[in-house]
Amino acid sequence: MTSLSTPVQPATQTFDATSVATRVRQAQRRFGAATASQRTAVLNTLSTLLDARRNHILEANQRDLDTAETGGLELPLRKRLRLDHAKLDVLRAGVDQLAALADPVGRTLRRTLLDDGLELRQVQSPLGVLLIIFESRPDAVIQIGSLALRAGDAVILKGGSEARHSNRVLVDCLRDALAAHDLPIETVVGVEERSSISALLDQDQHIDLVIPRGSGELVRTIQNSTRIPVLGHAEGVCHLYVDRDADRAMAVRLTIDGKCDYPAACNATETVLVHRDFLPHLAGMCHTLREAGIDLRCDTESRAVAPWAEPATEEDWRKEYGDLTLSIRVVDDLDQAIEHIHQHGSAHTDAIVTKNQATGEAFLARVDSASVFWNASTRFADGFRYGLGAEVGIATGRIHARGPVGIDGLLTTRWLLHGHGQTAGAYGPGKQSFLHRSLPLEEDDS
Amino acid sequence: MTSLSTPVQPATQTFDATSVATRVRQAQRRFGAATASQRTAVLNTLSTLLDARRNHILEANQRDLDTAETGGLELPLRKRLRLDHAKLDVLRAGVDQLAALADPVGRTLRRTLLDDGLELRQVQSPLGVLLIIFESRPDAVIQIGSLALRAGDAVILKGGSEARHSNRVLVDCLRDALAAHDLPIETVVGVEERSSISALLDQDQHIDLVIPRGSGELVRTIQNSTRIPVLGHAEGVCHLYVDRDADRAMAVRLTIDGKCDYPAACNATETVLVHRDFLPHLAGMCHTLREAGIDLRCDTESRAVAPWAEPATEEDWRKEYGDLTLSIRVVDDLDQAIEHIHQHGSAHTDAIVTKNQATGEAFLARVDSASVFWNASTRFADGFRYGLGAEVGIATGRIHARGPVGIDGLLTTRWLLHGHGQTAGAYGPGKQSFLHRSLPLEEDDS
Repeated sequence: MTSLSTPVQPATQTFDATSVATRVRQAQRRFGAATASQRTAVLNTLSTLLDARRNHILEANQRDLDTAETGGLELPLRKRLRLDHAKLDVLRAGVDQLAALADPVGRTLRRTLLDDGLELRQVQSPLGVLLIIFESRPDAVIQIGSLALRAGDAVILKGGSEARHSNRVLVDCLRDALAAHDLPIETVVGVEERSSISALLDQDQHIDLVIPRGSGELVRTIQNSTRIPVLGHAEGVCHLYVDRDADRAMAVRLTIDGKCDYPAACNATETVLVHRDFLPHLAGMCHTLREAGIDLRCDTESRAVAPWAEPATEEDWRKEYGDLTLSIRVVDDLDQAIEHIHQHGSAHTDAIVTKNQATGEAFLARVDSASVFWNASTRFADGFRYGLGAEVGIATGRIHARGPVGIDGLLTTRWLLHGHGQTAGAYGPGKQSFLHRSLPLEEDDS
Repeated sequence: MTSLSTPVQPATQTFDATSVATRVRQAQRRFGAATASQRTAVLNTLSTLLDARRNHILEANQRDLDTAETGGLELPLRKRLRLDHAKLDVLRAGVDQLAALADPVGRTLRRTLLDDGLELRQVQSPLGVLLIIFESRPDAVIQIGSLALRAGDAVILKGGSEARHSNRVLVDCLRDALAAHDLPIETVVGVEERSSISALLDQDQHIDLVIPRGSGELVRTIQNSTRIPVLGHAEGVCHLYVDRDADRAMAVRLTIDGKCDYPAACNATETVLVHRDFLPHLAGMCHTLREAGIDLRCDTESRAVAPWAEPATEEDWRKEYGDLTLSIRVVDDLDQAIEHIHQHGSAHTDAIVTKNQATGEAFLARVDSASVFWNASTRFADGFRYGLGAEVGIATGRIHARGPVGIDGLLTTRWLLHGHGQTAGAYGPGKQSFLHRSLPLEEDDS
């Protein structure tokens, strides 16, 4: 098995996005029509290669790490850049899991007998060509690459230059796994030049979905510069509403978990809305939050019980702090809490604390966000915690996929009709009628 | 019940798209949280109003028809503009059907027990705010308007000026039905000024989906001028591949139905690809097609057996004729046929005629179009024929909805988590583990 260690697009050539995207589309059409067992075999080979090439991968990663240190890359970014044996084991385990997964391609979602001998099936199909734009973490190459292979998709992977060598050897693993089973290597393509992004974002004829993995700024920039659908979220401004019927200890616990468990996460709690009737307990709560290291920004009413807090400005209500800062606002009732969430939130994840069943259910029914929680921390909004397996990302758009997205987000459907020469003109008023009989899915042998 | 016969946006005012879209978004949030029985009641009232206001509706329609005749509007457009008692009955029957339909909002699609007392549900939810842009047919106001009400969505309806009076009275029926049940009338808004379209297409913060109903040109123009997702198809370049193992009579029958049943339809057959081994039968087939009134454009090889046909040019392969013209090309094999379809087609609907099971299954597996048929006419690609009930449109995009789209295309999902105060920080390596137990959907009482 040869290692194709040269990047697809040498830096010296002019980047031709149309040519790259066209080739990847063609490769995807061949790869997407491969059998489930072929795709499984590719994943098994990928797992083997990740093991066999450990040293090669870690050497390449060390080159990136050396450059990063010399170049003064910040420590958190260097941490994300680093691969080690443990991380490779986790990546392999993920690939093995996908190899063991029931193949999603061709799965029948609906079967209808339109008429005798005229059967319609709606089947899951590869979405097509994905463009992944990511920063630092070379792990993403394998995580997203293997998901794409399971789904029958092709991927163009644009990583950050800081992970150039790591990304190359990992992309090679994917391509060599394809080549080992006579499937087109152009199903996975790595691109390196930063300037290639805008040209690729113009390829809406050949690229079906863009998945940016990185800062909110990256996502926003991409959303604003392409007609290709973007799966992602620019912001996570998540709320916890402490109802008048909230359990006090639970309100404190969920606030601390929501803010402190991982403040930089998109599902961290940024604003706590407090029902006016809860005010008598707020002083104690704020005290505990302060002791937990939380820096409070309070509206006038809540600041009356926490005078040491900074006053909140209008801007605080829209801020994803990313650190231990938390804003607090007092509201009149559920309506005002929901109004605030809809007006200032990012429709990512919002939660209520209440013992009152009617209030809890009203919150779940009315809050128009991707994830809505009752008596649970906003931090639960995550593909792994939801049991989706590998997570493609969290989507705050309302089209196609919403909230934490697993492999389903990388699939589309097709309608397959199997007849015996029927013509549409034979049906209609005064002519033949359709049966439209729903058929069980069990007989599925696709 | 009062009739609000004034349009929302008098032509003398400057159109403020942001203000309109914001109000509709607010209305949708209230309407989307209404109960299933409230939405059903609105639909029942709408049906009653359509009956009670028959004369009023037909009078308004007559005014539009008079103007159209005076203005010299073409006959086919005037036909589409005309309402009559029979058409109103059909519209009412559609509304009654939707009123009887199990409410899709809140339907549970997935239930997972993350841990004891921590239950996750993925539920269907209203998509949000729809912008419908349509021409001529005032029927669309009720068809799409009632679908939107069933799905908990709000709609902004931009009709053609030729149907101004008809659209107004029909929009009033929808708004009065909402008002009768104390639901926000701004859930349905009619806009009239042509210049409002581009301003509305900028409202990607408040409008979630655009559905253009009209010519391919209209759809293309809209797709090129908005960041809001567009549900629709610009073109239908559908193929029929006549395999070497095709039944001759069936090949002729499916070609004639595909081309002649309704040549202006998007699912009409535009190109017939013929396997070289079928050539001995092609002369007879072309003769029959000619007798059926079909005007052939043939490549060199097929023209050898139908010398009276026009020669096909490269442009013919991408043309949606819309009339009785049909192009024919001879191909070497299945691969070349599929290659042609992927290269020149619009991924709308493509069919094969063959008695060979392996070939039929390969075609279904490999052709990357929204609808793929084996031994059936391309004309079957249609929401009614598929048994989807009311059709929102046919989508050739690969994201969100594909092929004929029913009410599912007007819905999204939300993730609802019901806990008892659990924190995410309590789970992880060396701490609590998730159960991730899939639960049956039957217990759904949402």
